[in-house]
Amino acid sequence: MNKNIIYKNLILTIFSLSQLIYADEGMYPLSEIHKLDLKSKGLEIDLSDLYNPDGISLIDGICNISGCSGSFVSEKGLILTNHHCAYRAIKNASTAENDFLENGFYAKNMTEEVQARGYTVRITESYRDVSEEILSAINKNMTLAERTKAIEKKTKEIITQVEEENPGKRASVSEMFIGKTYVLFIYNYLKDVRLVYAPPRSIGNFGGETDNWMWPRHTGDFSIMRAYVAPDGFPADYSVENVPYTPKKVIKVAPEGVNEEDFVFILGYPGRTYRHRTSHFLDYEYNFRMPFVADLYEWQINAMEEVCAENRAVALKHLSKIKGRSNTMKNYRGKLLGIRRMNLIDNKIEEEVKLQKFINSDKKLKNEYGTILDELNEIYEEDKKTTERSLTLSYLRRSSELLTFAYTLHEGAIELQKDDVEREYNYMNRNIDMTKKRLLLTAQDFYAPSDKILFKNWLERATNLPLHQRISVIDELFEDAEIDVQIDNFVDNAYSKSKLADEEYLLELFGKTPEEIKAIDDPFIKLAVSLYPLYQEQKEISKTRKGALDQLYAKLIDVKKEFLGAEFVPDANGTLRLTYGNIRGYSPRDAVYAYPITTLDGVIEKTTSEFPFDSPEKLLTLHKQKKFGMFSHPKLGSVPVGILYNMDTTGGNSGSAVLNAKGELVGINFDRAYEATINDFAWSEDYSRSIAVDIRYVLWVLDIYSGADYLLEEMGVK
Amino acid sequence: MNKNIIYKNLILTIFSLSQLIYADEGMYPLSEIHKLDLKSKGLEIDLSDLYNPDGISLIDGICNISGCSGSFVSEKGLILTNHHCAYRAIKNASTAENDFLENGFYAKNMTEEVQARGYTVRITESYRDVSEEILSAINKNMTLAERTKAIEKKTKEIITQVEEENPGKRASVSEMFIGKTYVLFIYNYLKDVRLVYAPPRSIGNFGGETDNWMWPRHTGDFSIMRAYVAPDGFPADYSVENVPYTPKKVIKVAPEGVNEEDFVFILGYPGRTYRHRTSHFLDYEYNFRMPFVADLYEWQINAMEEVCAENRAVALKHLSKIKGRSNTMKNYRGKLLGIRRMNLIDNKIEEEVKLQKFINSDKKLKNEYGTILDELNEIYEEDKKTTERSLTLSYLRRSSELLTFAYTLHEGAIELQKDDVEREYNYMNRNIDMTKKRLLLTAQDFYAPSDKILFKNWLERATNLPLHQRISVIDELFEDAEIDVQIDNFVDNAYSKSKLADEEYLLELFGKTPEEIKAIDDPFIKLAVSLYPLYQEQKEISKTRKGALDQLYAKLIDVKKEFLGAEFVPDANGTLRLTYGNIRGYSPRDAVYAYPITTLDGVIEKTTSEFPFDSPEKLLTLHKQKKFGMFSHPKLGSVPVGILYNMDTTGGNSGSAVLNAKGELVGINFDRAYEATINDFAWSEDYSRSIAVDIRYVLWVLDIYSGADYLLEEMGVK
Repeated sequence: MNKNIIYKNLILTIFSLSQLIYADEGMYPLSEIHKLDLKSKGLEIDLSDLYNPDGISLIDGICNISGCSGSFVSEKGLILTNHHCAYRAIKNASTAENDFLENGFYAKNMTEEVQARGYTVRITESYRDVSEEILSAINKNMTLAERTKAIEKKTKEIITQVEEENPGKRASVSEMFIGKTYVLFIYNYLKDVRLVYAPPRSIGNFGGETDNWMWPRHTGDFSIMRAYVAPDGFPADYSVENVPYTPKKVIKVAPEGVNEEDFVFILGYPGRTYRHRTSHFLDYEYNFRMPFVADLYEWQINAMEEVCAENRAVALKHLSKIKGRSNTMKNYRGKLLGIRRMNLIDNKIEEEVKLQKFINSDKKLKNEYGTILDELNEIYEEDKKTTERSLTLSYLRRSSELLTFAYTLHEGAIELQKDDVEREYNYMNRNIDMTKKRLLLTAQDFYAPSDKILFKNWLERATNLPLHQRISVIDELFEDAEIDVQIDNFVDNAYSKSKLADEEYLLELFGKTPEEIKAIDDPFIKLAVSLYPLYQEQKEISKTRKGALDQLYAKLIDVKKEFLGAEFVPDANGTLRLTYGNIRGYSPRDAVYAYPITTLDGVIEKTTSEFPFDSPEKLLTLHKQKKFGMFSHPKLGSVPVGILYNMDTTGGNSGSAVLNAKGELVGINFDRAYEATINDFAWSEDYSRSIAVDIRYVLWVLDIYSGADYLLEEMGVK
Repeated sequence: MNKNIIYKNLILTIFSLSQLIYADEGMYPLSEIHKLDLKSKGLEIDLSDLYNPDGISLIDGICNISGCSGSFVSEKGLILTNHHCAYRAIKNASTAENDFLENGFYAKNMTEEVQARGYTVRITESYRDVSEEILSAINKNMTLAERTKAIEKKTKEIITQVEEENPGKRASVSEMFIGKTYVLFIYNYLKDVRLVYAPPRSIGNFGGETDNWMWPRHTGDFSIMRAYVAPDGFPADYSVENVPYTPKKVIKVAPEGVNEEDFVFILGYPGRTYRHRTSHFLDYEYNFRMPFVADLYEWQINAMEEVCAENRAVALKHLSKIKGRSNTMKNYRGKLLGIRRMNLIDNKIEEEVKLQKFINSDKKLKNEYGTILDELNEIYEEDKKTTERSLTLSYLRRSSELLTFAYTLHEGAIELQKDDVEREYNYMNRNIDMTKKRLLLTAQDFYAPSDKILFKNWLERATNLPLHQRISVIDELFEDAEIDVQIDNFVDNAYSKSKLADEEYLLELFGKTPEEIKAIDDPFIKLAVSLYPLYQEQKEISKTRKGALDQLYAKLIDVKKEFLGAEFVPDANGTLRLTYGNIRGYSPRDAVYAYPITTLDGVIEKTTSEFPFDSPEKLLTLHKQKKFGMFSHPKLGSVPVGILYNMDTTGGNSGSAVLNAKGELVGINFDRAYEATINDFAWSEDYSRSIAVDIRYVLWVLDIYSGADYLLEEMGVK
């Protein structure tokens, strides 16, 4: 049957349903779930099977894996997540000769699994509101900066105490509503994570950056990892003695998949949203920060790609850096488009005008809230005056990895002399190991020629700042004439002299006193030392700023609630959230309707012989032979590859299980449609669509393509 | 209402229809129309109202306007066609100060109309089969080249005789099936054409090259011209004395437009298709010619665009050249994609294998047709051996406009000494004026700096040809070492010395004897004279080739008819054809459905402040104020802009009236969807979709945007 007809018939089928059920905006914290009537939306299991603070529920089968989400799909700690979430692990295990990123990886038994260095797994165990405790630390006589510091210190005290009382666990306090509500989360925290399976790049990252943030999508963005614990069941660092972690709950995989309009939900760890911010914030993002960063990254990506052309070993060192920047760049470009298309700034202004009117109409309200919008405006206006300087400062420190190392060493030396709870987060006793590990992982991918180019570029930018925004330390480095030549000389000398790229040397310096660090004759350390006061100054300013914003946004939420007579859901903040909705297409633009299920036929259609649309020969053959196994969609007549739905997700939801009405896994969330990059600022039933790899494609690739029976059996599918 | 819902509901409506009616492949010649049961397909008028050789019918309201199609929409010779068809006329009327191309043009009365220099209008008056007469000119003793020449001569004789007998008319003989059937067409031929209305570039070419060959489309690609005749009603060259031409038939404009699935048909002048060619032809196009030309044009476009950056006056000289090349380049890229996607070459080969089997199965057939496929293969294989040389030769002559002038002068001088029917087509008495006019129009847009770049590039290409494909004349120009420097010197000297860019000088040389031309000391004339024998040689080869192909393709059609037991429609050849179908969307790729009507909302959605998506401020305001007049689509709630249908069109159908079941004009055809560039080689119900500007948008722009009441009244709309 002709494809046009298939789509039209499918669309018809849906519309024989009397009416569509609409999802709401919302990434609901666990504390809010009981307020939702999920049964009426389509959930078929009891709420207590989904979330049960006093027993076992789906929550216990969900984890946060190094900033992504994941699901336990076997008794032996098998984790299903995205290919792009395991990317660093796959890359680190790869060499130019043994290129798992390019060719895929499959551990045929546990001993073949590869350590995923730096990866950790968090499972939410419990949470409680600690707003009162936190806010008790501040008083009215404090300056704004003091306020911020007091909250930070209190937070650290609570965390430290909880972790002492719960060995092996990890605690964190998350700000839910800015300056207003704080929740303590306790996590089980696993530190031995291993790579089990990754499809080849031409499946796991099919379509590459071209298709990133795009629907229709045909990327098999999944991978399999496994969490290990000590033989006694306690979390432990990597060791051959370790045994697979037994999750409290195993998420059941549903090989039959989903259909259009099916109810689905996600339990995951969305990163950050900014929906409660004002038009002033959005204006700053739209007109200043996002275009600046998008252009910067585009330049850096081009510079790095030129260097990468040399050979695969060099390319491997840059892949993560390029991928991350490309992802952000395209996301920002999408947001800029979305803000314009949805008239977001004007709409926010309109809302704020109405809110101000409401406030002004009542004397008491006016007294309490009359100036908050103006005050917020003032803070952002103040920011704009020194945007170039502050952005430059913030990127300068990271412009060269050697400068980053130097800065970390110097800052660490100073911080380590303080009491634990007084230290910067990264240098607290509970975090210092992770900070060191991260430093070494970065050093592993250091490549002087590209590092030099990026560093030089930032020095040039710094020397070109407008007059009233100069950075004194940089100005003092160079005389007025022929600055380009001076920068060249400075940089060449710095790279030839510095030994900071040496991992052993780095480890040796970590833990030295500030005096010892200062005494080292290294150009990057010297620069870091001289820049340090500027960053301290900057930090102080930003703490004052946060103190002011905290108060204002807390008040804003109060009055908005009164104005709208409604409760809100707090912005995403990396804590466990639920979102629900339906498998549903949308109209991305005039006269186009995007159907919510793609197929293997579409993979073939997109396939050319050229990267990033080069499918493996075997996949083409299997498609030609119609070897679809049990994974074919009965109506589409092909293996479903991607699914689309109107749930509310953002970065951090990557790897989240997409669960059906019975709470079974039908897909792995990995991206959003281009129009839905706007989710971070606003949600829209028209545009907000997220993307998962269909479980049928995951299983087809494992079973028919890779013959990984062993894993399918472990997941209970075969 | 949410747009997703609107589309879904509309799609639903269609499917309450019990079933879809399918159009067939086919650009039907007038002689075939009576075989079609158009009433059962949806036509509501009598066939004799559509086409009536003995009376007045729609055919009389349709014209060919300089290679495009057009429709007479008033008693006073008003012609509705595309903006891109009037492009040269608008451009020629424009100056940097008075830029009609950019700002649009509107003649508020007849005296304000501007002459469209070089434009002609043909209206089909009658036709008859002359195959027997033509084929009587050849006999079995002739060589292949003699055969071709005999047919050419006979054709010219018939044309000359008919035109003598019918003063003011234009005759042409068109080959319908290669080497097999020939039809004589007699046209009324108008030579005074004027520009009446053109929308601004930001409407008429909204989306520019980015949207060219694309659906969904939002381009207002229409313009209005008017044909004039002498006061006695006879065709005449431009004169202020002339009066508007009164067409025999006026096409009625239907301001209510069409809806999805409505029956529609087109009467127009499709240019060329190649559906009856074999896999060998397609292979040559796919692997050699099309990629070569696409890459070449991309290079030339970039080179010209750099030059254009200088200023608008310079840009105006290049717009047509760039537009034409961009159009072809994207068309070829689309075809290359389509051939791959539809597996066209493999499918043709499969067909041919079956045909060969059929032939081999019968002794008589085998005797008659046994070797035709092999022989065709041999001809194309032979071509491949000297592809680079023949493509280079063919482009070299046009590489510089000065060389083109020189060649035309030299060739013309030689040809003019021959009897009229022995001459090359362009130099026959009936064509010589047009050839001169074309030369002068080209000279008008001559710009030395870009001409130099293109010429130099071709000399470089020629000097880099592989050993066995060298061009002797070029090789003799340059010594072996430092060819680049020699080419530079040669070119610099040639441009500084030649006076051929001077229009008066050109006209003066036209008509001189070969000896006088040869005696002129001009580097381009010298080069043309020395290249001439090579082109004569090439022409002889191609006549032999055509002689062979004629015979083989004539036989192929015979045996294919026997094999398939079916009649075919001949390939398009610039003669009047009918095609019919329905307003219908399609699935351009996996999980995407394109709806067949776009709207003004979509124009707004695509609008940025940047070319080519910069809509006029006034248009944005009118949209905001919802000033849609009577032109709003009742369900879409906005002015329809583009319509899509499954009719069978190709280049030359540009400007064709899209007619509804009653034979009223509902759109002006101007393009195809990207996937439908493949139409030239094959037709597909899945992919073959053509695009018109909706009459409601045309009228909205004329009425609400431009206030051109006078024209609307003339068309009988107001």
